[in-house]
Amino acid sequence: MALNPPLNRKLRMGIVGGGIGSFIGRVHTIAAALDHRCELVAGAFSSNPEKSKQSAPDYGVDESRAYGSYEAMLDAESRLPADQRIDFVSVTTPNHTHFEIAKAAVEAGFNVVCDKPMTLDLDQAEQLLKTVENSDVVFALTHNYTGYPLIRQAREMIMAGELGKINAIRTQYIQGWLAEKLEATEHKQAAWRTDPAKSGVAGAFGDIATHAFNLGRYVTGELPDKVSCHLKAFVDGRRLDDYGTAVIRYKSGALGTVTASQISHGRENDLEIEVDGTLGSLRWRQENPNEMIVRKNGQPHQIYTRDPNADFTKPLAASSSRIPAGHPEGFFCAFANIYLAAFDDMAKRAEGQPFERRDTVYPNVYDGVEGMMFIEQCVKSSEQDAAWLTLSHSAART
Amino acid sequence: MALNPPLNRKLRMGIVGGGIGSFIGRVHTIAAALDHRCELVAGAFSSNPEKSKQSAPDYGVDESRAYGSYEAMLDAESRLPADQRIDFVSVTTPNHTHFEIAKAAVEAGFNVVCDKPMTLDLDQAEQLLKTVENSDVVFALTHNYTGYPLIRQAREMIMAGELGKINAIRTQYIQGWLAEKLEATEHKQAAWRTDPAKSGVAGAFGDIATHAFNLGRYVTGELPDKVSCHLKAFVDGRRLDDYGTAVIRYKSGALGTVTASQISHGRENDLEIEVDGTLGSLRWRQENPNEMIVRKNGQPHQIYTRDPNADFTKPLAASSSRIPAGHPEGFFCAFANIYLAAFDDMAKRAEGQPFERRDTVYPNVYDGVEGMMFIEQCVKSSEQDAAWLTLSHSAART
Amino acid sequence: MALNPPLNRKLRMGIVGGGIGSFIGRVHTIAAALDHRCELVAGAFSSNPEKSKQSAPDYGVDESRAYGSYEAMLDAESRLPADQRIDFVSVTTPNHTHFEIAKAAVEAGFNVVCDKPMTLDLDQAEQLLKTVENSDVVFALTHNYTGYPLIRQAREMIMAGELGKINAIRTQYIQGWLAEKLEATEHKQAAWRTDPAKSGVAGAFGDIATHAFNLGRYVTGELPDKVSCHLKAFVDGRRLDDYGTAVIRYKSGALGTVTASQISHGRENDLEIEVDGTLGSLRWRQENPNEMIVRKNGQPHQIYTRDPNADFTKPLAASSSRIPAGHPEGFFCAFANIYLAAFDDMAKRAEGQPFERRDTVYPNVYDGVEGMMFIEQCVKSSEQDAAWLTLSHSAART
Amino acid sequence: MALNPPLNRKLRMGIVGGGIGSFIGRVHTIAAALDHRCELVAGAFSSNPEKSKQSAPDYGVDESRAYGSYEAMLDAESRLPADQRIDFVSVTTPNHTHFEIAKAAVEAGFNVVCDKPMTLDLDQAEQLLKTVENSDVVFALTHNYTGYPLIRQAREMIMAGELGKINAIRTQYIQGWLAEKLEATEHKQAAWRTDPAKSGVAGAFGDIATHAFNLGRYVTGELPDKVSCHLKAFVDGRRLDDYGTAVIRYKSGALGTVTASQISHGRENDLEIEVDGTLGSLRWRQENPNEMIVRKNGQPHQIYTRDPNADFTKPLAASSSRIPAGHPEGFFCAFANIYLAAFDDMAKRAEGQPFERRDTVYPNVYDGVEGMMFIEQCVKSSEQDAAWLTLSHSAART
Repeated sequence: MALNPPLNRKLRMGIVGGGIGSFIGRVHTIAAALDHRCELVAGAFSSNPEKSKQSAPDYGVDESRAYGSYEAMLDAESRLPADQRIDFVSVTTPNHTHFEIAKAAVEAGFNVVCDKPMTLDLDQAEQLLKTVENSDVVFALTHNYTGYPLIRQAREMIMAGELGKINAIRTQYIQGWLAEKLEATEHKQAAWRTDPAKSGVAGAFGDIATHAFNLGRYVTGELPDKVSCHLKAFVDGRRLDDYGTAVIRYKSGALGTVTASQISHGRENDLEIEVDGTLGSLRWRQENPNEMIVRKNGQPHQIYTRDPNADFTKPLAASSSRIPAGHPEGFFCAFANIYLAAFDDMAKRAEGQPFERRDTVYPNVYDGVEGMMFIEQCVKSSEQDAAWLTLSHSAART
Repeated sequence: MALNPPLNRKLRMGIVGGGIGSFIGRVHTIAAALDHRCELVAGAFSSNPEKSKQSAPDYGVDESRAYGSYEAMLDAESRLPADQRIDFVSVTTPNHTHFEIAKAAVEAGFNVVCDKPMTLDLDQAEQLLKTVENSDVVFALTHNYTGYPLIRQAREMIMAGELGKINAIRTQYIQGWLAEKLEATEHKQAAWRTDPAKSGVAGAFGDIATHAFNLGRYVTGELPDKVSCHLKAFVDGRRLDDYGTAVIRYKSGALGTVTASQISHGRENDLEIEVDGTLGSLRWRQENPNEMIVRKNGQPHQIYTRDPNADFTKPLAASSSRIPAGHPEGFFCAFANIYLAAFDDMAKRAEGQPFERRDTVYPNVYDGVEGMMFIEQCVKSSEQDAAWLTLSHSAART
Repeated sequence: MALNPPLNRKLRMGIVGGGIGSFIGRVHTIAAALDHRCELVAGAFSSNPEKSKQSAPDYGVDESRAYGSYEAMLDAESRLPADQRIDFVSVTTPNHTHFEIAKAAVEAGFNVVCDKPMTLDLDQAEQLLKTVENSDVVFALTHNYTGYPLIRQAREMIMAGELGKINAIRTQYIQGWLAEKLEATEHKQAAWRTDPAKSGVAGAFGDIATHAFNLGRYVTGELPDKVSCHLKAFVDGRRLDDYGTAVIRYKSGALGTVTASQISHGRENDLEIEVDGTLGSLRWRQENPNEMIVRKNGQPHQIYTRDPNADFTKPLAASSSRIPAGHPEGFFCAFANIYLAAFDDMAKRAEGQPFERRDTVYPNVYDGVEGMMFIEQCVKSSEQDAAWLTLSHSAART
Repeated sequence: MALNPPLNRKLRMGIVGGGIGSFIGRVHTIAAALDHRCELVAGAFSSNPEKSKQSAPDYGVDESRAYGSYEAMLDAESRLPADQRIDFVSVTTPNHTHFEIAKAAVEAGFNVVCDKPMTLDLDQAEQLLKTVENSDVVFALTHNYTGYPLIRQAREMIMAGELGKINAIRTQYIQGWLAEKLEATEHKQAAWRTDPAKSGVAGAFGDIATHAFNLGRYVTGELPDKVSCHLKAFVDGRRLDDYGTAVIRYKSGALGTVTASQISHGRENDLEIEVDGTLGSLRWRQENPNEMIVRKNGQPHQIYTRDPNADFTKPLAASSSRIPAGHPEGFFCAFANIYLAAFDDMAKRAEGQPFERRDTVYPNVYDGVEGMMFIEQCVKSSEQDAAWLTLSHSAART
């Protein structure tokens, strides 16, 4: 793992979200600070100023920097001296708020790390893209599963041609927590994730299928052409899809499938990818992320483990590991890898050095646009009896 | 396992196919004889009379009953005394020959065990159905994967309502042996399976997707309504599909997917089924057939093993096991279970007792018709840009 | 798989044991007949002549050859013409009867396939060894787990030096069926297996640890020197051990462990072997017998599957498979492989050809002697507070 | 997870070790800071003052608090005002230095988190115990594997009697990294770990078997009585054991085995525990730590996953999880759980509240004494041809 970070100080983080009871906000704070390169110093932890203040001690944040709104945080922090002011804003609130917060933060000159899906719809995403392009900030999107070392290994192997030409990409993301109508109970997560006003036009497809789609894109670099999709809400009265299958035709002729479910009893967070190339195939599952199977006809199957010291491990995969093989790294480490890569660019920016805007190691605003297009076109295709719709966007990167 | 078979003698088997070098023919002979209820006494092992005779000693068959054609076998055996004559014909030749052999055998009054797909096309299948219905023979089709005890357990649990209403059925059948253009070499299996004249209109979808579709049908009893399918031949110059995905809408509203591949490097015979119901989900893989996972939200996941002595094992699953849990049963035992169930009915017929014609334990001519419809409609849908076509046939059974 | 057996007829089998309700007897009949090279024609299925006759139809055996005792069978069959008489006797009765039956069969000139442990004690085993050495019969012992193709692959790889010098051999055989005092119920299997008069001086160590010990011996060829053992009967009032651990020092300096349990809840038949060599290590589990993991430092782990067509598969492993990779073979197939190898030698004997007596493919009387020594020395060591006792016997083979 | 820590500030950490290139030191810093309850503010990162200073920026530590020796750190920090001074010292250096550092830190009134094995020998351990007992500090020992939520679940289930009376405890800790003589190369880790002067009397048994032994003790609470042990150094010229097996007799009559290897090719960090009780059995593997199998005769096997929200999850296991099931937690999280529990007591001490000294949630100085006794007695037993030696120590806790 890269030691000696380029900046001779920790980066300063301000979070929006993460108040008491939050899941993903807390994940961001742990991931960002994991490698001693960042310190959480400010937060709009809740839109309720009282609650925001109550959350500050959990993070060792000074109460004076626990704000009651993102606007207050951006405003106050902007006026602090440069050597105290936050370097970046992490946006960890429900989907419908991402756009305004991220846009404001970018416009105020702060780097941004935004949770996915990036915005509520494609139109917002394209606007945000312009805003970012017109700025000089670092913008990262936490498609966190691309931070797993073996996912990076998969990408590096495929980019090096080790699997040959890619024919098929099968992804599944299977959960079960919404098998019952939790949104009819007091369950906060279920409530906003099944509410079109807060979640957007898609349910499971916005929440998890985007991850699966993004993973296939990241690992193979294949550019999508068209999509045909079937969505269902199996739970009576649910307003957004909780199940669906999309078939994707890639420009190269490759064929992809994305299946997502939130109604599969007992299934936890089972994101899985299988890739078939003309020279080999691979398979990886998020729930057991420290191994990946690579197969070639006529040879014993190979289990690649997350092993930073092995010759077979590719450079980015190796530098994405913190500890030796056999010492399981999990969700936080992968998440932290997204942050680490963004920190490298933030440090460059802070020091006035040039940095990559488009082909970044971490998912960025371009991936965000593409993700929003995926969601919208899947929903439209499903409404049109699984019609084939375009999935090609100029912002897509390889 | 049922001992004391109803007939006080072994049934006599005549095979078509199974000559030296055969795969599936030899499987039939082993499976049929596994439980001491049947003896192979005759065979048209090859259409080359010389080769047919050479194959006889492998099976301990008397040379005088090694025939040079199925016609010769049917003719000669028909003229033998009833207590020597074969009881049934197993059809284990390439697809394009099934129809004429099976039809002739039925018309000659012999019971038939036929390999799948049942015929070359749906038209033939419907003709064969009529022939069988006009006869009094037992007709079994070796969708052998339904013979696995835990698959039967799955069906029995679902029929008993233990998984609730079925929402989703995901099946995959992934192989890799055709990743290269083997049909351009001397590879006999590859040659006929990629030749439309011998295999029918579909490749992988006829060879293996039918198994996956049939498995979903067997396990859940859900009746299909429509199908949308995308097929591809990834290997240059291949004449039939080697990859494809079908989406199925069941009449109940359930959603199904069938993905089949023969070009996934290193994948062997990876048939897998996942079923989601409103009360639970299950998952089973053919390559590790002695266990099945059942999950319910809020409970530890449950691994059901093939355990004939456990209280949780359902009657048919229990009687489909030969040995205690932990002693792996495999492909042959499952295959033999199809034969065993057919033998029960053959014994009844031999003793002049009535027997079930339609809702049999073993796959039968009705399943064969449905399988051929699945193949034909998938190919047509794929040709029409994945249009939704009907998948409803009057012969379908629950 | 070897087709065209050397003899131009099926071998004729006579069984002792296997009556209604039997487990291992029925396994023998299925395994022996699996490949069409043998026919069960006679049996002393039960010591109750009535029951013996009742069992005959289950196997398609003529009632006239269902005998009321092994003596009657040996006597009557000896007087049949050579072309009807049985070729071999399978001994599948409880341990305490093996010796007299096997000895009598050998002395009557019949080949013998005997279940393990070979006799009730080492003294009997050494007597039987002499009897066999003084005869010209084929004698096989069903340490059936050595029949698994991947176990043979492991042996062939180790003999070829692919794992280097062997350092450690860890075997475990874990079951749970005796966690409660089943022998106090009507449970027949439990009753004789926990009765010293029928089972011998050891319980779990005679029943299953012998298999584990034999497996380590077979796979590595390492010669044992000394053993230190601790046995326990955890269930109150049980007369024989139901748990134990033995540490073995091999002559080469390698260190081995054998742990056996019959009181581990829910564990089915979990025989496992791990071997460490200076160049690589391997691991195989009986409950998932179609794969084996081979590991070498610095390389991806390798999953060897049972693949008769792969270049990496060694000759004996390849010829021990009946069907392609991915089509699970299980317990019966492995068991049948012991029989098949014995049949090769029986055919040679029948044709007056020479055949190997000591270094056979199948476990034989020498392995039987060694197994009995293992059991006796483990029990003695345990009685002497785990003292180190010799485990070296002149009959041991590599 | 416990939010709102009792102290209204972060605890201040000073580390000994952790300089550039360190493995376990860095692990400590990440684990300690993971939950925002601690900040690394000082370090004797290296005994080379220059190097120590160079390491400071990696951790965001001010250069003025990067010390050249632990003595310097203890001295300087003691003289800082109470609101700046470190709260605790983490000892992460090679074994032979633990004693003097830990002792000095305790005597200076600092809380201590010490890596294992606690000291170089039992005598030191007993001295340290006295020092700690005479102080009022919090003393934690990083037997980090007891921090895994499912290990805590296992303990809680066993303490609640859900597995009945414990009969057998099998642990294995298998690694392969010392399969070759790395200590003859420039490999620093290998050098000190195979050097008796730095590692103590044992190699693999001190490094990893102690973890396995401790895990069995923690999970079951069984008190050991005697041990018989066989150690080997398989690599020529190695000065300490790299392989061994110990058999343990517990006071209750339970039987345990501990096998450790560092010469098993390709094996990474495979710590495994199996426990058999009269009502059930369980199995857990460190390399896949988010699931545990629990089995009971006659029931489907149960996979317990790390699920903080499930009813079946016990209180300590639930509070030891940070994120929902299916989001893998790994090595760092488990390690951090040791720190978190120690922090609770440090906070109490800081606020003048009483806190538990002996029956702590985290491993402590008593476990350290017991671990050192295990190492010493194993080595002695091995030297005495596996003689049975006592393993009973008055410091042992349940």
